[in-house]
Order: sequence, then structure tokens, then C-alpha cells
Amino acid sequence: MRWVLAPDSFKGSLDAADVASAMRQGIERADPRAECVLRPMADGGEGTLDALHAAVGGQWLDYSVCNASGVEQSVSCLLLPDGTVVLEVARIIGLPDAGDTPVTQRSSRGVGQLLLALLADGYREIAVALGGSSTNDGGAGCLVALGLQLCNAQGESLQGSLQDVLDFQTLACEPLRGKTAQVKLEVWSDVENPLTGEQGATAVFGPQKGVAMADITRFDAGIAHFARQLDTGMGQSASHLPGSGAAGGLGYALQLLGGRMVSGAQAVASHIGLAQAVAEADWVLTGEGRSDSQTLSGKAPACVAALARSSGVPVSLLSGAIIADDAGRLAAAFDGCYSLCNRPMVLDVAMQEAAHLLAQQAEQLTRTILAARSLPNAR
Amino acid sequence: MRWVLAPDSFKGSLDAADVASAMRQGIERADPRAECVLRPMADGGEGTLDALHAAVGGQWLDYSVCNASGVEQSVSCLLLPDGTVVLEVARIIGLPDAGDTPVTQRSSRGVGQLLLALLADGYREIAVALGGSSTNDGGAGCLVALGLQLCNAQGESLQGSLQDVLDFQTLACEPLRGKTAQVKLEVWSDVENPLTGEQGATAVFGPQKGVAMADITRFDAGIAHFARQLDTGMGQSASHLPGSGAAGGLGYALQLLGGRMVSGAQAVASHIGLAQAVAEADWVLTGEGRSDSQTLSGKAPACVAALARSSGVPVSLLSGAIIADDAGRLAAAFDGCYSLCNRPMVLDVAMQEAAHLLAQQAEQLTRTILAARSLPNAR
Repeated sequence: MRWVLAPDSFKGSLDAADVASAMRQGIERADPRAECVLRPMADGGEGTLDALHAAVGGQWLDYSVCNASGVEQSVSCLLLPDGTVVLEVARIIGLPDAGDTPVTQRSSRGVGQLLLALLADGYREIAVALGGSSTNDGGAGCLVALGLQLCNAQGESLQGSLQDVLDFQTLACEPLRGKTAQVKLEVWSDVENPLTGEQGATAVFGPQKGVAMADITRFDAGIAHFARQLDTGMGQSASHLPGSGAAGGLGYALQLLGGRMVSGAQAVASHIGLAQAVAEADWVLTGEGRSDSQTLSGKAPACVAALARSSGVPVSLLSGAIIADDAGRLAAAFDGCYSLCNRPMVLDVAMQEAAHLLAQQAEQLTRTILAARSLPNAR
Repeated sequence: MRWVLAPDSFKGSLDAADVASAMRQGIERADPRAECVLRPMADGGEGTLDALHAAVGGQWLDYSVCNASGVEQSVSCLLLPDGTVVLEVARIIGLPDAGDTPVTQRSSRGVGQLLLALLADGYREIAVALGGSSTNDGGAGCLVALGLQLCNAQGESLQGSLQDVLDFQTLACEPLRGKTAQVKLEVWSDVENPLTGEQGATAVFGPQKGVAMADITRFDAGIAHFARQLDTGMGQSASHLPGSGAAGGLGYALQLLGGRMVSGAQAVASHIGLAQAVAEADWVLTGEGRSDSQTLSGKAPACVAALARSSGVPVSLLSGAIIADDAGRLAAAFDGCYSLCNRPMVLDVAMQEAAHLLAQQAEQLTRTILAARSLPNAR
């Protein structure tokens, strides 16, 4: 049997390549003749570059840019064999690196610096993987790095933190214009939220980045004011586009620069040639740390399932946890949804033993499939 | 697809019929055209009569006999359609009913009383399901009820508790002789331990019945002395037979009476016509509360798997917990071993939600099997 193993990472436990490798181990234990094609997946969040590199290789490019707290750091982005450079926002302004810096002081400036450096080095096909940011600055930091001028009441230049967005008095966007005119800019995300409002970046994603509930309205209004001024200045209305609320408003800033929002999972799938691999498979196995009804909204396993379905290839889900929805939509999307938990256990144990448990569960699944295939009355 | 659902009970959570019914629910959700034959199983322990009654019906016979503490109670045994009466030791002298009575005071007398009553009522085919006893009296209580005379140093008659076995001075076994001569007596158990010694009843099963570690040697020696005297008196050597250590020595007493030890699971399987049902199935599903390497030593799922294998029918295991052995023997015995845990969870939750989780997991398994059967290149 020919398998395609295309899991996402299990956050906090295993990266996608490790998950795929554990799956292969179990499958080969049950079926030594199995042929496993490993296609670790990602959805545009943390782990996207690793998944791409594992699948198609490419060249790492290192640049020194600011993290969310303004500290200089070396960041790698990936030049794919097809000439596209992919940036992973989680590597630049990721949540784990934000430390104690309050969310009002964090900025997406490093993303803008990196774009600027890539432009200077002549790269013209750039994709920005948006997941895992720690910022909620409406993308101001990124835009300031690319030329936007923000000034306070005293006429002093601001750097573009969330606090600066709340404080600014005037902005000048002329230097931004045409900055990315020659660039094919893609924005990879699984988020469709608008920049502001009840479903906006601050209200929905702010709290997990440290925004106090009491500050949501004030911050949201500040970002809305900033975006209105900027949209007017640029003659656009990017703040209303779906996905403008991704990565604390980076989705807005990058669309303002001409970026095209695409599903992160689909973009990765396309770059790693997943559709073709799936079409040549007998069975596809995907998975993620936790699967629930959100999984079907653009997460990697849903993308893998859609490709498998369109090729008529069975696809199963093997995740850390399966939280079934009442309507059975998750179950209906797969030919079997399985958890790696082989007994009652706490989350910590499931995460620690994930590789071992994944292999064991993949082995069981393989045994079942082999037995079912050899039924004499198969249709 | 035609399924046979033959799980054991999930102790403390669901009886075998409920387990089978939950499995059916999940299977039918994935495949409304599935045909499910429910054959709840048991291995001779608690739940054996329920499983038999669910599968083949029969008539309940009620008798008033002593529990392990000597309290009169009404106990049901089951007259099967084929004329066999089955006693379940767990219902007579079961562990949950032993209360605060110390193990030295507990006695298997009720089992003997029930046998006596059945003999008086003319029944000649009797099976005793041994699992789940609270006694460790070497079967003395049972034998005293059937006529054995045990006396202390003062010549007073003893009833046959463990304490009496330690205290007795003389025994007279003449009244026992021929008592069950006309009876076809079967002893159902999954235990092969000898009566005494390191692998004997007291050393292995005593502690879970309340025997203190410090008392094991003394109790074991007392029972060995009792059995030597009795074997000599009866001209037998039943105390050396495998299974004589089952049910605190009831295995010894019943073999002394001419009983034939048989695998409880195999006996139940035979009475419920499992072999034939399995032979006509496309897939067999079994399970139990917790599966580990012990499962393969005569537990119900191992018996079900053996029947399925001998008919060339695939068989999967769906249990509360799957504790895989390093050698992979458990996995090799089934076409997929699955736990009902669909996420990290504590034991209590797994037990409370068992029916729901079982259905969900059976649904996933069915989806996988259906997809595998319809693979175009199935062999």
C-alpha cells in the first residue's frame, strides 16, 4: 500500500516531520511492504518553514531584524526552489519571544524590516506566513519600517507599537506608495477576521496576547481610527477585507501593500506538491494536536482531506485529541478520526509519549485497513 | 456488512450487553445498512449470567443461601434452554457484598448450599462460574455445606471459614463421597493457579481480598494442611490440579467433587453459539474494560479472537484502555486494537462517558473499514 503522511505539527509536542515519521514507523510495523511518502504539512503558522523545507528543501536566508520587543535578532526565511521567499511571522515576532513586554509596546516592525531587506536584495516573490504573532499593532510597525511616517502631537516620529497607534496625531503614507509594486506578495493565513469590531483582531485574538478585557474597546477604536486615516491616505479600503484582522492587523497592512490573502494550508500544500502525491496514494493520513469543528475552517487536515476527496483517495485523521461536533461534520470529513490516546491519560503524558502513541495507533489503523482490503467480498 | 459484537463487560462502567449496544449504535451511524449480531460475552466472572441470558434466554431460579459473611440472601442462578444450570459465584459470595467481615471469617458455604438445593431439585448438569469471589477458605465452606465434617480440638463442628480451616483438628469426608456422582459438573474459570504455594490462591489473590502480607505464609500452610488431609481422605490429589487456586480454593473443592475445569470464556462462547455467529460474519468486534498482555490468557476477547481467526474473519478490539506489551502480542492478535479515549481524559470521565465514546469509536472504525473495502485495488 502506498501512503501519504501529511500531518500538521502537534504544538508543544512534535513538529510535523516528527509526526509523519512516527506514523510511518507504526505503518511499517504492521505492513513492512508499505510505501510511505512523507509530506509534513503546515497552515501558515509556526512550523510552516520547517514543513516546506522538509518537503522541497530550499535555501535559508538570514537577516537581522527586531523582534516584537524591539531587540535585534537573526531570523531565517526560506528561499524555495521556485524562487519564492517565505517569511514566518512566528519566527520574527512570535508569542514565545515576547517575554514581559506589554502588548502595547510590541510591534510588527521586524516583519517590515525583513520585507525591506528582501526587496533590497532583489527578491520579488514573497509570501508571509502569518500565524503565531504576539503583536496587535494593526500592522503599524511593519508599515513604519517600510516608510509610513507616524507622528505624535509634538511632531516626533513614532515606531509603530500599539501604543503609538493610540497616540499618533498625523500620518504620512506617501513613502509607502509603490513600495511593493513589483512584488508578488502572498499572505498565508487561516484567519478571515476583519481588522476591527466584534470579530476583529483585538476582540478575538487580543486577550491571548495580553490585552485586558477592559482595554479592548479603546484599543479597537484606536486601530480603527489609524486604519481609516491610512485607507484614506492610500485611497484604499483594505481595513474591510477579510483576513485584515490576522496577526494583530498585519493582515491589513500586507493587503494594503498589495498582498493577496490565501489559505496558508493550501499554499503549503501547493508548494510541497501534495495534490499529486495524494492522487498517487492508496491512503492518506493527516493529523494535528487537537481536532474539533475549527479543523474544518482551513486547518491543514481539512485541506489534506479536501485534496484526498477530490482524488477519491481515503483519508484518516490521527490527532492528539478528537473533539467531535454534534453534527458529525468532523467525522464525515474523514475515513476514521482517531486519537493517539490508547488509555485514560492526562494531557502531559499524551504530549510526552506522543511519538510512541502515534506509531502505535498508526499500526492499529494499518492492521484494520489491511484486513478490510483482504475481505473476500470487498466491493 | 455483517458484524458480530461480542465484548466482555467494562467493569464498573457498562455490562456486556450495553457495550455491544453502544458499538452497534456507532456502526449503524457510519453504515445504516450494517447488520449487527449482538453476542455479549463473559469469561466466567461477574456478568456471566447476564451475558448468557441476553444471548440465549433461560429461566431464573431463586434460592436462599448464605453470602460470604453468613447472611441469608436470595440468589438467582440461570437454567439455560439446554438444561444446564449456571451459578455465578460473584452473585453468592461476591467481593462487593463482603462488607467489613474479615477474610478469615468469610466462607464459601453459600455455594455449597446452592449446589445442594439444585441437587435436591433434580438438576444434574451444573456449571459454576468462579470469578469475583471474596473468600479464601480453600473451598472448605462449600464442602461443609455438602457434608464434610470439620471439628476443632473440642470436637465442635466448624462451618468452614478460613479461620476454621486454620483451627480444625479432625475431618470426616465420608458424607461427601458420591454426593455429585450423577452430576455433570463444570467449573468455569480463567485462572490456572494451583491451590497453594507461590502461585497459589492466598499468595496471588489473597491480598486483594484483604489478606495481610504477613499472614500469607500461615494461611497458605493451613490450607495446604487441610487439602492434604482431605485429598488423603478422598483418595485423590485434587490440590495439585491447575485451577485449584481459583476463587480462593473453590476450584479445588469443586474438582474434588468431580468438577471439570473449563475456560469460562470458551464455555460462555459455546453456550451462546458464538462460533457459528462469527463464521457468518464479515467483521467481529470485541472489547473489555482494560486490555493488556493478560487479555491473551483466557480472557473473553482472546477467546473471541481465536474463534474469528479460525473462521478467517477479521476481529478488532475496542476497550477502555489498551496497554500494549513490548512484544506486540496483543496487537498481533487483532486487526486493530482501539481505546474508547478520543482525547486525554481521566479514568472517571472515560467510565462515565463510556457508552458515548464507544459508539463514537465504533463509528470511526466502521468508516475506515468501509473505505478500505471499497479501494479499487483491494486484493
